[in-house]
Parts: sequence; C-alpha cells; structure tokens
Amino acid sequence: MLSIETYESPDLSQATRLSKITGTMIGFEDIQKICWTSTSKIVLLVMDGLGGLPHPETGKTELESARKPNLNRIARESICGLIDPVSPGITPGSAPGHLAIFGYDPVRYLIGRGVLEALGIDVELKPDDIAARGNFCTVDDKGIITHRRAGRISTDKNAVLCRLLSSITIKGTEISVLPVKEHRFVLILRGTGLSPELGDSDPQQIGKAPRKIEALSPQARNTARIANEFVSQAGSLLRGKTPANMVLLRGFSGRPHIPSISEIYKLKPAAIATYPMYRGLARLVGMKILPAGESITDQLNSLHRHYARYDFFFIHFKNTDARGEDGNFPAKVQAIEELDRGLPSLLSLDPDVLIVTGDHSTPATLAMHSWHPVPFMLKSKWCRPDDVTEFSERACLAGGMGRFPATEIMPLAMANALKLAKFGA
Amino acid sequence: MLSIETYESPDLSQATRLSKITGTMIGFEDIQKICWTSTSKIVLLVMDGLGGLPHPETGKTELESARKPNLNRIARESICGLIDPVSPGITPGSAPGHLAIFGYDPVRYLIGRGVLEALGIDVELKPDDIAARGNFCTVDDKGIITHRRAGRISTDKNAVLCRLLSSITIKGTEISVLPVKEHRFVLILRGTGLSPELGDSDPQQIGKAPRKIEALSPQARNTARIANEFVSQAGSLLRGKTPANMVLLRGFSGRPHIPSISEIYKLKPAAIATYPMYRGLARLVGMKILPAGESITDQLNSLHRHYARYDFFFIHFKNTDARGEDGNFPAKVQAIEELDRGLPSLLSLDPDVLIVTGDHSTPATLAMHSWHPVPFMLKSKWCRPDDVTEFSERACLAGGMGRFPATEIMPLAMANALKLAKFGA
Repeated sequence: MLSIETYESPDLSQATRLSKITGTMIGFEDIQKICWTSTSKIVLLVMDGLGGLPHPETGKTELESARKPNLNRIARESICGLIDPVSPGITPGSAPGHLAIFGYDPVRYLIGRGVLEALGIDVELKPDDIAARGNFCTVDDKGIITHRRAGRISTDKNAVLCRLLSSITIKGTEISVLPVKEHRFVLILRGTGLSPELGDSDPQQIGKAPRKIEALSPQARNTARIANEFVSQAGSLLRGKTPANMVLLRGFSGRPHIPSISEIYKLKPAAIATYPMYRGLARLVGMKILPAGESITDQLNSLHRHYARYDFFFIHFKNTDARGEDGNFPAKVQAIEELDRGLPSLLSLDPDVLIVTGDHSTPATLAMHSWHPVPFMLKSKWCRPDDVTEFSERACLAGGMGRFPATEIMPLAMANALKLAKFGA
Repeated sequence: MLSIETYESPDLSQATRLSKITGTMIGFEDIQKICWTSTSKIVLLVMDGLGGLPHPETGKTELESARKPNLNRIARESICGLIDPVSPGITPGSAPGHLAIFGYDPVRYLIGRGVLEALGIDVELKPDDIAARGNFCTVDDKGIITHRRAGRISTDKNAVLCRLLSSITIKGTEISVLPVKEHRFVLILRGTGLSPELGDSDPQQIGKAPRKIEALSPQARNTARIANEFVSQAGSLLRGKTPANMVLLRGFSGRPHIPSISEIYKLKPAAIATYPMYRGLARLVGMKILPAGESITDQLNSLHRHYARYDFFFIHFKNTDARGEDGNFPAKVQAIEELDRGLPSLLSLDPDVLIVTGDHSTPATLAMHSWHPVPFMLKSKWCRPDDVTEFSERACLAGGMGRFPATEIMPLAMANALKLAKFGA
C-alpha cells in the first residue's frame, strides 16, 4: 500500500493559520523556516473529551471531583490555560478537535464522513481513494426505505454481506466493502481520475427511495456513474436478504491534502492510541503508529520502549470521553483518576515538554461532545509558570495562557522544546 | 538624500489587521478615518527584552526581583496586560518586535537582513535601494572558503577594505560599501529597476566556494548580474589581502512599503533611541529622530527639550535586553532599577498617555530573545485601572488588558489620548 511519506507534498504557502492572540497570519511556511531538529522530546497527552460541567449536586466538574495528585503537581509547574479547538460555541467532532491540537486549521482541513469511517477501522487510504459511509437498510417492494439501519443487523451478518458486495466488479475501479459495527460499512473506490464531489444516496429519512448519486462537479460524472453502478449491483445481490436488502451511501470523500507534522516542524512524530480512529487521524498527519495495547499502562510502556527513536509523542486516552458520552459522571471521574495513576511512569521519562489537554469537552451531564473550552497545561524548563495549583476548568482560566486557540499549541510546544529559531531579523 | 516623507504612499486598504478580541478585520484605512489631531501627548517607553523568567533559586523574575517603586506606582494607575508581539510560541527578532508595537503586522512587514544591517549603522535607505549583509572571508587558491569571518579582522581594517571596495564601478549603479563591526559590512546598490529578489552568495559553511547570486524572479536578472559583477570585482581587488581576500553576501532586501505613523494616525512622532538600529526602525515608520545621548537620563533630558514640538514619543531603553542576552540576571535587575530611577523626570511631564512595555522577552536564564509575552501598562486619565499593583509578568496577567496582540497598542494609545472619533454612525 502506498505509504503516506510518498504522498505529493501540499502547498505550504496556502496553509496559513490565523493567530487569535496576535491577529497575525503566520503560516506553516513561516514556521517551517525557523524550525530545527534537536534531541529534546515533546509528549502530547490528549485526554479525549476532558472538559466537563459541574455536577448539579456538588457544583464541581468531573476534573474538580477527581483525586488527581499527579495532574495537580504538573499544573503547579506548568503554564495553564483553556483551549478552543474550533471557535467559541462550536462543538468539535473528533477530527477537527484533533487536527486543531496538531496545529491545523480545523475549518480548512475538513475530514469527510467516509474518510473518518475508514480511519476508524484502520484502513490506510491511498491519496486518490474515495471513501463513503454505508448503511445496510431495508426497502419495500417499491424500493421505498422502511428502515435506515436494517434493524441494526449483527456485525457478523454485516461481515458476510460485505464479502458478498466485495465481489462487485466495475471496469477500471477497485472496490472494497469493509464492515464496521452493526449496519455500518465503508465503501472504498480506487482508480484513476475519481472525484469525491458526489451527493449522497442516503435521503436520511424513511418513506423515500434512495437517491440517485449526483455528480456535484463535471469532473465527478464518471465517479457518479461508478457509484450508481455499485448501488445497482448491490441491490441485485442483496435482493431477498431482508432486512438488509439495500445500501445507503453518504459522505463521499477523499484524503485531505494536509502537510505532515514532520514536513512542517521537522519532527519525528509517533502516536500511541488504543482506538483506530485516533491512529487514523495521527497517520493522516504523518505520525508513525506505535503499539498501544489496551490500557494507559500499556500505552506508557510502549512510550518507554520507543522513547529514544522519536521526538514527538501523541498519546490518546479515550476513557474520559467514553464515560462522558455514557452520561456517567462518577465513571468519568474514575477515568481521570485512572489516568492520573499512570502519570508517574510518564513523568519518570522527564520529557522536555509535556502537554496535557483534550480535543473537546464531553460533560457527563450533557452526555455528548460540547463547545466548552478545554483545560490545557504545558510543563517545560522554559515555560513561565503561573499561579495555577490545580488542573481544572476554573483554575486553568487564571493560567498564563488564558483562553486561546488550540492551533497555537504546536508552535508553543516547539518553542518550549527550544526547537524554534527567532522570527525576523 | 531623499527624505522618507516623499516616499510613495502604500495602499492603506491592504494593511488590514485582525482584532483578537472581536475577530474583526480593522484596517489602517478604517483607523485613519477616525483619527484627529490634538495637543495631547503619548509617550511609548520600550524596555527592550523586558520580560523574563523566574530565577531558579528565588522563583522570581528579573522584574519581580527589582526595586522599582516608580514602575509599581505607574502600574497602580494603569490598565495592565501582557503582549504577544508576533504569536504565541514565536520569538520575535528586534524588527518584528518593534513593528508590532508600532501597530504593524510583523508577519506582513518583514525587514530583510540587509536592510536591518543598514538601519543598524544609521544609513538612510532610499525607497528603491537594495541592501545586503556582507562578510569579509578567507578563500584558498581554489576559491574554497576556509574562514567565513576572515578571522574576525579589526573594524579599522574593515573600514580600509570598505573604502577599497567602494571604488568599484558598475554602469548605471551607485555602489556603497559601509563598514559595520569586525568582518561585517553593508553593500548598498542604488539605481533604477533594481530588485531584491536575489539568493545569497554566502553558503553559510566552510569548504565550499561562494555561490553565484541567483535571480529569484525574472525581474531580478539584471540586479543579479550587477551583484555578481560586484563580487567578481571585489575578489580581484582583495586578491592577496589574506585573511580578508573575498566577500560573502546574504539577505538582499529593500525597504518595505510601509505606511507611516503620521499617515495612519495623524501624529507627529519622534524617537529617542541610543542605538542606531532602533533609530533606523523608527525612521522606517516615519518618526523624527531626536538626540538621545548615551543614557536614559540623556534621553529624558532630550524628551524635555523637544516635548512641545511632537505629540508621540518612542523612547527606547536597551540595557534590559543587553544584560538579558549576557545571561546576567543581577545586571538585568539593575538595568530595570536604573530605568526606574529615571522615571520621575518622565512623570513630571505628566503625558496624557504613558505606555511602558517591551518588544519581546529576554530572560537572563535563557540569555536570548524568547517567545514569552511581555508586561504592558498604559496610564492615562481615561484608562480603566485594574487591581494590578506591581509591574511584573505574573501581576500583569491579571490586568484589564489580559494577554493581547502588540498591534492593538496603537489604537488603544490613540483612544486614551482622545485622538480617535467613534467608529460608525
């Protein structure tokens, strides 16, 4: 499979970001010119869905409720703040949340639904592949949708049907149909001259027929023909296989043209993530994927084993988000405490720069991603510590970084690792 | 010599800035429309490299360690904050740091190495002049560089060689070769149709021959020819004059097209700076250069003498940066105290607006410019004072301005001087 390193380099000059604090446009091109390589190490620990809201009974957030001596100790030696991944009031999906933390304008670099679904099952997409999110669904005799999720068929049944659909052949196009969970699958079209500028076949409601997939630009006409041909052949193969007798496709997309972390910052970056989607996002920005095992202990063991070979580590901790999404306040508190117990192993490596933050908030009281800014701290020999003595939403507000855009984390990390020369004469 | 006032006016509409707090684009053109002239006075005191980091033993920064009753007294009557000259994590050079304080987007208005070197020896550049930084160097029989600095020849020897090279004639081009310190010089090319879009001849390493100067755009071809002709003639004139038997050129640049302070804000600005580079930067934005003497006492005496004739004064204090660069913590503390002792003379003038800040941080522990935000205070009858009672990094963080871009200082100064009408109907 084509590796990400051989991917055609995007035009850095276009990849401008805008600093909220200074209002200046400072682009990847400007930053690239002042980056240098050194032996110093940066560790970026992302606690997914970290931010929370007060519990109605105690008035304390999940972070404020947790026993977390190690996080508090780091806070005392750090510069703290609150990040906005996208913009105040905007709730980030997982992709924009992470891309912002990795330094990319999350509005400019949008990841399509199909690509995100593919990343979520560890598929490595070639630069010109087109991915779509698929649902198995139920249609009646007249082809009208009666159930958009085919009664949530089992994942096993899904796998059987995906193998069946993978037998579809369309001249000049390689077709992969890959099962996700229950009724979900990913369709990948591989060939030359394909375009993701396609409408959905999924009308996202019952009582209607699946839509013909439309080309949204002239150059997508051939791809629309291929996608409709796939849907037509799939309908024939699935006939009678009720409840999963049809497919719905949406979110056709291609891999975004995104400059890699190593290209911009001259880093050797590696990711340690237990969930495939985060490995996929890390791979998208050129990180090497390291073994992660199944727990934060496994992840930190992997960090120790690979510490000498890279200079930037992204560690993804999923449980804070998962328990927040469950709406389980005490379980989210426990997830924070679980992470905290793992920290001495991380601190024993004494990285030159240690950042702890999240990709968005997931308050257990809301049981979903939210727009609230996310606690942030950065510890290094050269940070200018503030008076914050606890790692929490309220405490971080008084931190030296104040409230700031997540896209400013990477330059700050590089500066504190003494990997940035001065700008301008 | 052509004076800066007759310089062709740049397009103000392009000079847009972006407000951090509101995210709106407010440009020089917008500001210009609401500026008016009045008798009120603004004094901008820049303590170069002001910001610091805690001393490892005391946990206090240079500012926190200094006895500075006058600075603290001003802080009590001021609105305080912390400025980012370029962007969080980005360490400003002297030019971007000052341009930001003067209200210019420091990423948009980049000053090339050659121009900065010329400013540093008080040379007034014409709008179309091209300046390059030069080194005398040593090459062997085969033209390979054996020493990039010609063994750091004396400044006197340098001056003799510069006079020799000034005898070079190239048709249609006026050539000046001006000595800086030791092995450094400035080459200025004056003529019509010259372009600064040239590569360096300096390969920045020994063991290689000087590079042929390349045109980086088609319109620079003739200038490249002239520059190469200069190098060739210089090589002939210097033959046998070992160790300074060749020249290396880099950082070809022209004066940036920058609207003047008086043009944008309708001010009569003047600068009092003891070091030529800062006089040069002030001249670049259209300030009148006043005598500065050699100490802050001399500078403030000059301020008193010229106070009636201008309404905006930029006073540059160098010692804080110089002692910080030396890595001498106690000496930087003393520099702050030296400045503080001078302040009663300044306060006796009771300017309508007094601003004290720095162009960047220079922590003595780092012994170099750094990315840390810089303390700021603005005292005027009309500022809304906050609870800050001390002028320091930590105290200013809690100030009414919070952390903000340096480019917002000028509109704020104008407002507090009651020199800005309201915006919009």
